[in-house]
Amino acid sequence: MSVETKDRIIETGARIIHRQGFNNTGIKEILDEAGVPKGSFYFYFKNKEDFGLSVIDHFNAKFAVMTEDILKDGSSPPLKRLNKLLDFFMDFFRHTEYSCGCPIGNLSQEMGDLSAEFSKKLSDSIDAMAGMYAKLLTEAADSGEIGADIDIEETAYFIVSSWHGALIRMKVLKSDQPLKSHKRFILENILACQG
Amino acid sequence: MSVETKDRIIETGARIIHRQGFNNTGIKEILDEAGVPKGSFYFYFKNKEDFGLSVIDHFNAKFAVMTEDILKDGSSPPLKRLNKLLDFFMDFFRHTEYSCGCPIGNLSQEMGDLSAEFSKKLSDSIDAMAGMYAKLLTEAADSGEIGADIDIEETAYFIVSSWHGALIRMKVLKSDQPLKSHKRFILENILACQG
Repeated sequence: MSVETKDRIIETGARIIHRQGFNNTGIKEILDEAGVPKGSFYFYFKNKEDFGLSVIDHFNAKFAVMTEDILKDGSSPPLKRLNKLLDFFMDFFRHTEYSCGCPIGNLSQEMGDLSAEFSKKLSDSIDAMAGMYAKLLTEAADSGEIGADIDIEETAYFIVSSWHGALIRMKVLKSDQPLKSHKRFILENILACQG
Repeated sequence: MSVETKDRIIETGARIIHRQGFNNTGIKEILDEAGVPKGSFYFYFKNKEDFGLSVIDHFNAKFAVMTEDILKDGSSPPLKRLNKLLDFFMDFFRHTEYSCGCPIGNLSQEMGDLSAEFSKKLSDSIDAMAGMYAKLLTEAADSGEIGADIDIEETAYFIVSSWHGALIRMKVLKSDQPLKSHKRFILENILACQG
């Protein structure tokens, strides 16, 4: 038993769950793909739900690492960083052929009615994403890039929500058109018109 | 065997799938709740996927019936009807204690990567929802309620997408706050600022 084994189970599980959903993924399938015997699973996790909570932590940590460089690039003004962030995610989904979507959005949709503990953790994850946008918007308001009386918190949550919705249509269309449209509405409409 | 039996299987299945997802719902569970023997299922449907396609048709038909009165109310100007429509859905979700969400959005998220036939039918369903909004927006542009040079089609799809995303956060928050916020952004921002 090792941290490595636990991480391998989580990483493998996260990859499969992102692709096909939580309820559609069996523990056996994860362990077979990870090459780990069944006993290991119950050494690290109480049950599948307990494991799912660790998978959410994994997704959050991965999201933070993926976005770090763009967010911290002080040489770019805040709206340019927002622009780059949306482009980065569009590139990401182009490479995955417009599949999977946002794992946090997916799990919220799938598990939001089924488990209060999942819901709380997913709601916190959405808060963190909105917090990332709120930070950029605060900087943008401070530097005069957007109006100073914009409702930063509500706008940040709306960016996350409308992105999650755009990903839903992306999946059935297999096209980035909904993502491009999301970006246009956020940057040219919502942020340009408020405040 | 009768149309009644087939409809009962579809209605029961739709109710359960709306609540807990497609992959998470077994045929046996549907038939038990509908009080129908197993043989009946395979008399009407080739397999679970074939059944799922009928369930999507059922959701679409139900959506059309639910929205018909508001959409056709000629005594209300188009933006007022849009307002009423969003209020109607908010009331609907208040009554379901912010659970379930939009079945078409849910299935798109769940099945968009798993079945091309599902994706096509779901994409058509989203087209129909966007078509409903596009019709209202066209009337609103014609009557001068919104700018004449608004991109009606893109805006209509954005209303659907951002609504689907708002429903995702509604489910984990168990609150109508994301739906209220969606309405505010659409009516006071997107439609007020474009064109």
